[in-house]
Amino acid sequence: MSLKVGVIGTGMIGQDHIRRLTQVLSGVEVVAVNDIAMDRAESAAPAGAKVFETPQELINDENVDAIVICSWGPAHEEQLLACIAAGKPVFCEKPLVTSAESAIRVMEAEVAYGKRLVQVGFMRRFDADYRRLKTVLDSGALGAPLMYKSVHRNASVPEGLYTSDMPLNDTLVHDADISRWLLDDEITGVEVRVPRRSTRGNDLRDPVMVMLHMSSGVIVDVEISVNVAYGYDIRGELSCETGIAALPNRPATVITDQFGIRQAIPEDWRERFIEAYDQEFREWIAAASAGTATGPTTWDGYTSTLVADAALRAVDSGKLEKIEMIEKPALYSAVEKIAAE
Amino acid sequence: MSLKVGVIGTGMIGQDHIRRLTQVLSGVEVVAVNDIAMDRAESAAPAGAKVFETPQELINDENVDAIVICSWGPAHEEQLLACIAAGKPVFCEKPLVTSAESAIRVMEAEVAYGKRLVQVGFMRRFDADYRRLKTVLDSGALGAPLMYKSVHRNASVPEGLYTSDMPLNDTLVHDADISRWLLDDEITGVEVRVPRRSTRGNDLRDPVMVMLHMSSGVIVDVEISVNVAYGYDIRGELSCETGIAALPNRPATVITDQFGIRQAIPEDWRERFIEAYDQEFREWIAAASAGTATGPTTWDGYTSTLVADAALRAVDSGKLEKIEMIEKPALYSAVEKIAAE
Amino acid sequence: MSLKVGVIGTGMIGQDHIRRLTQVLSGVEVVAVNDIAMDRAESAAPAGAKVFETPQELINDENVDAIVICSWGPAHEEQLLACIAAGKPVFCEKPLVTSAESAIRVMEAEVAYGKRLVQVGFMRRFDADYRRLKTVLDSGALGAPLMYKSVHRNASVPEGLYTSDMPLNDTLVHDADISRWLLDDEITGVEVRVPRRSTRGNDLRDPVMVMLHMSSGVIVDVEISVNVAYGYDIRGELSCETGIAALPNRPATVITDQFGIRQAIPEDWRERFIEAYDQEFREWIAAASAGTATGPTTWDGYTSTLVADAALRAVDSGKLEKIEMIEKPALYSAVEKIAAE
Amino acid sequence: MSLKVGVIGTGMIGQDHIRRLTQVLSGVEVVAVNDIAMDRAESAAPAGAKVFETPQELINDENVDAIVICSWGPAHEEQLLACIAAGKPVFCEKPLVTSAESAIRVMEAEVAYGKRLVQVGFMRRFDADYRRLKTVLDSGALGAPLMYKSVHRNASVPEGLYTSDMPLNDTLVHDADISRWLLDDEITGVEVRVPRRSTRGNDLRDPVMVMLHMSSGVIVDVEISVNVAYGYDIRGELSCETGIAALPNRPATVITDQFGIRQAIPEDWRERFIEAYDQEFREWIAAASAGTATGPTTWDGYTSTLVADAALRAVDSGKLEKIEMIEKPALYSAVEKIAAE
Ligand SMILES: [Mg+2]
Ligand SMILES: [Mg+2]
Ligand SMILES: [Mg+2]
Ligand SMILES: [Mg+2]
Repeated sequence: MSLKVGVIGTGMIGQDHIRRLTQVLSGVEVVAVNDIAMDRAESAAPAGAKVFETPQELINDENVDAIVICSWGPAHEEQLLACIAAGKPVFCEKPLVTSAESAIRVMEAEVAYGKRLVQVGFMRRFDADYRRLKTVLDSGALGAPLMYKSVHRNASVPEGLYTSDMPLNDTLVHDADISRWLLDDEITGVEVRVPRRSTRGNDLRDPVMVMLHMSSGVIVDVEISVNVAYGYDIRGELSCETGIAALPNRPATVITDQFGIRQAIPEDWRERFIEAYDQEFREWIAAASAGTATGPTTWDGYTSTLVADAALRAVDSGKLEKIEMIEKPALYSAVEKIAAE
Repeated sequence: MSLKVGVIGTGMIGQDHIRRLTQVLSGVEVVAVNDIAMDRAESAAPAGAKVFETPQELINDENVDAIVICSWGPAHEEQLLACIAAGKPVFCEKPLVTSAESAIRVMEAEVAYGKRLVQVGFMRRFDADYRRLKTVLDSGALGAPLMYKSVHRNASVPEGLYTSDMPLNDTLVHDADISRWLLDDEITGVEVRVPRRSTRGNDLRDPVMVMLHMSSGVIVDVEISVNVAYGYDIRGELSCETGIAALPNRPATVITDQFGIRQAIPEDWRERFIEAYDQEFREWIAAASAGTATGPTTWDGYTSTLVADAALRAVDSGKLEKIEMIEKPALYSAVEKIAAE
Repeated sequence: MSLKVGVIGTGMIGQDHIRRLTQVLSGVEVVAVNDIAMDRAESAAPAGAKVFETPQELINDENVDAIVICSWGPAHEEQLLACIAAGKPVFCEKPLVTSAESAIRVMEAEVAYGKRLVQVGFMRRFDADYRRLKTVLDSGALGAPLMYKSVHRNASVPEGLYTSDMPLNDTLVHDADISRWLLDDEITGVEVRVPRRSTRGNDLRDPVMVMLHMSSGVIVDVEISVNVAYGYDIRGELSCETGIAALPNRPATVITDQFGIRQAIPEDWRERFIEAYDQEFREWIAAASAGTATGPTTWDGYTSTLVADAALRAVDSGKLEKIEMIEKPALYSAVEKIAAE
Repeated sequence: MSLKVGVIGTGMIGQDHIRRLTQVLSGVEVVAVNDIAMDRAESAAPAGAKVFETPQELINDENVDAIVICSWGPAHEEQLLACIAAGKPVFCEKPLVTSAESAIRVMEAEVAYGKRLVQVGFMRRFDADYRRLKTVLDSGALGAPLMYKSVHRNASVPEGLYTSDMPLNDTLVHDADISRWLLDDEITGVEVRVPRRSTRGNDLRDPVMVMLHMSSGVIVDVEISVNVAYGYDIRGELSCETGIAALPNRPATVITDQFGIRQAIPEDWRERFIEAYDQEFREWIAAASAGTATGPTTWDGYTSTLVADAALRAVDSGKLEKIEMIEKPALYSAVEKIAAE
């Protein structure tokens, strides 16, 4: 009675999800894989899994209950529409799609189907630290939220491959999505400021400061630095009317030695969010086994394309770039209980 | 190809392990249960599992690959011997057995079998914080360990049910076992001191201070307090030649409000060690699937009975109570790689 | 051989400085006082001190070596000019003066005198935490500074008396001055954003977010919240090229109880900065005894009027308000050694 | 109207106190000095101070209001008795005297005089962190104290000069005195345990563990390590009935870099307790100006000789060494208000 999953795209992230579905999680098995490179698909396929030549065949195979999409972004729309046409739950890695128009087409298909089928890969929502932070906020004990500081620091980025637009259209989506989720609020406009550049990034526009204006009036202040050298450092601090709530340090041995009283910080996102990825799929498996989806929605994927577009405009204009959205389909407004940790 | 497990004893802890094996972990299924109360066994049995009338029948059933023992302590020896006779891997909850003589009989059977089959339920060894602490120590960066402070505090204990001997024969085993494992060392003697009593425990001997003398000369200083009111607080601090290494605070939102800058602490052992229990069984499943056992050994269970006995003698004598052990069978001396987190 | 000091203005802050000069610090005595209310001056005067009817008489009295000005802002210019005319060192509480033009006149007089005589009351520069932070930055170990986050939170402000402009023309000066000093940099422009309002402040514009653009390109991001209920919370975090340096929590007993693991925070600025005030005067006494002044300069007072003016314009315009300064007199550019703590 | 002080002993600590009384504190001047080496006394004497050939002459000089004794221990008794005979307040550095009998003679003289004149140099009682800890305990919010953990770690000690008895008769007195003061309790017995030795101290008995048994039943558990390499680390943690109260980390910039999230620790006792020394003398000056003494008493000095003696016996015997005291003179039982910080 395990959920039978087909995985499309067997690059680094696809392989990691296959490992997770095969070795870590219960109630699931990988029965099918597909990749544009057949040999890569074959070497990634676990014992007993069938290798399909096309995504379409995999999606429509009657032995496949649900799909995990790890292909590149431009291929997502067609694959998502095929999953919805087949009525099969689908987990889609970021980015959901590569334009707002594309996201609208996927939403229209899902709304026409009448039930959620798509979960987008915003894994931070499944992180225990963020969930505890949200629990504190939602308790109301600190009053209404007024500001949120989000800090996103990478030790380094691949020189040449990582361009100056990527902090805004690739990295910022995590801070934007988690802000929307934490605050249960929508982004209405984006401003970007460019401080003194780090000499570690050569000509890279790094760091950047982003202000997200929320519909409630809350301002989210994001620091993105991608060359901090010392590690992967994700911080979040909510300023509320009667108190502050912040993400804690990560658990790490407290060492006292010639460098002081100290705790290590994670080296990269893998180390930081490994449990969040597991939990993300644990909840996806539960929903997909029931023929539907929970967690981040197609709407969330849609807004993330709008935020990235606005941020890129804002860096050029130096002004507040407003975000215009279509009306939110009722399908995405349903109150959803967050699964207990 | 899942490991087929039979569970003996379906009280609170047995039910929790059935949940874990059924809903949380992969590569395993519960196919058989037994309890002295048949109706409790029947209501605890997951779909498809067979309910056995006796432990012996469950252990010997050919559909059962491995056994989890959650019955009461006095029943363990017979059940363990039956598992070994059947050549089946077995996870046994604490206490392994209730006397040193009994532990020796189980060791003799396992040694005669020629391969480890028994894992004892010391779950702290699977906790990520303790493992990181051990990694720091084993790196050698801080020099040799000289002292270890272990703090074990419970919010409260059930009045009447929890007696004055229990901190020493029930609670102390965790601190003793984790000290032996962290330090890769053996306990040679035990001293107990009784400070001013807490009025919260009425006539209970609470708190107690225990000194464990290790064969290397390291002294382990244990504080056991079972009525601290504020939560479940487990601490460990290693004093080494050139530095200190300590367990960190548990991850918890940092709240700043009228009570200060603060982080919550766990309420009980369940909240504190839930991931450790999962990891404990994850590693047991891997070893049992290979027909053997890793983790805490029958020898570790044997020593824990000796430590508890010595502690009880020490509280009466007020002196250092030495521990005399049989020679350690080679089976339990093999170097064992700790599974990576 | 003590420094003989005359104090002008014997309101709350004047009385506190008289206490400090009389009871706490060595090498100084208060020999003269003046206030617009003679009876208040008389009751504030320590034993042996002469009460003067006018500031002018006090300043010119031959028994007075140096002056401390604690009168209200509009009276400062005339008193400062009189001190300079008399060639006497003077400590002047904030605000130095109430307009840029006024500040320029004081600078011209001091420059004409040819030697520094004026120290402005920016006490944060004397705080041990800020000094340690600057030492870390100046060591160069973390590379160049790129961003600075300054947080300024008050538990509450007097309703009615505290107006919406005061966070910008009264509170912000501390964050602005400490940023200039920490970064050894000048402010070139100011932006203000107004997030969702706290309901605790009724119609007060609270909180506000301010961005200070520095000539190096560093952006300083200031949160000012004046009704946070929980205490007085001053934070500062420098993002540098290869690391972060931040003000620590204030020393406070670590309590573990039903509210968690926690440390108290200061109630108000008095508790937070009491040692800084002492140190501020300790260094003033040393310089004044040598016939000159160190620490915050008339130029620093001048820039603070410009920053407050720009911030008030920015809240109205919603735009970056640039700051135009006169050329900096050489008198205020001299490298000055910070006294060791 | 300054207090006119004579300083006996102008070695390192005497010179430091002369600096403190001359340059840091108000209401005091050093008018006389004496040392067994006249040339050292002359070079240490501040401008205007008279150099005396003998302690007796200094003590009896009519221009000297109060005395600070920084000579070596064996000289203290005679000098203290001379001060008492002259009816002059005296601050005496540790050790008060070098035997219990000697301490009893000084107490008898002081009791005969009828008023306290002697303050002993236990500076920890003046440290803000310890005072806050005591305030928390005395508030009663955490219930009665049950155990106290005191940690005393030095980076290193001078090889050859520092002998194996010194942790017990020189270092331990600080932990013993602060425990008595914090707990408002008396020590009735001492046990010592010697863990594995640090190879950094060669043959030095280091570390040592000491248990102080208090008359209330509280057990104080002291770790003394004098070669920890990484710094000077003083810790204290009170276990009470409903919570824990502990000394905080020292204020230090929070740096995040390749060594983790970290705070420096003090290098030595000078850095750690510099403010405590200032406060110790601030309060001594106030009491001495009123012709008496507050703070640590001759009785406290007496008990510290008993504790050191018992600790040395305990290391040899391996047993609990009881402490027998004379009856406490009423002079030393008076309730004394701790001066507000
Ligand atoms: Mg993801
Ligand atoms: Mg267990
Ligand atoms: Mg000031
Ligand atoms: Mg002292």
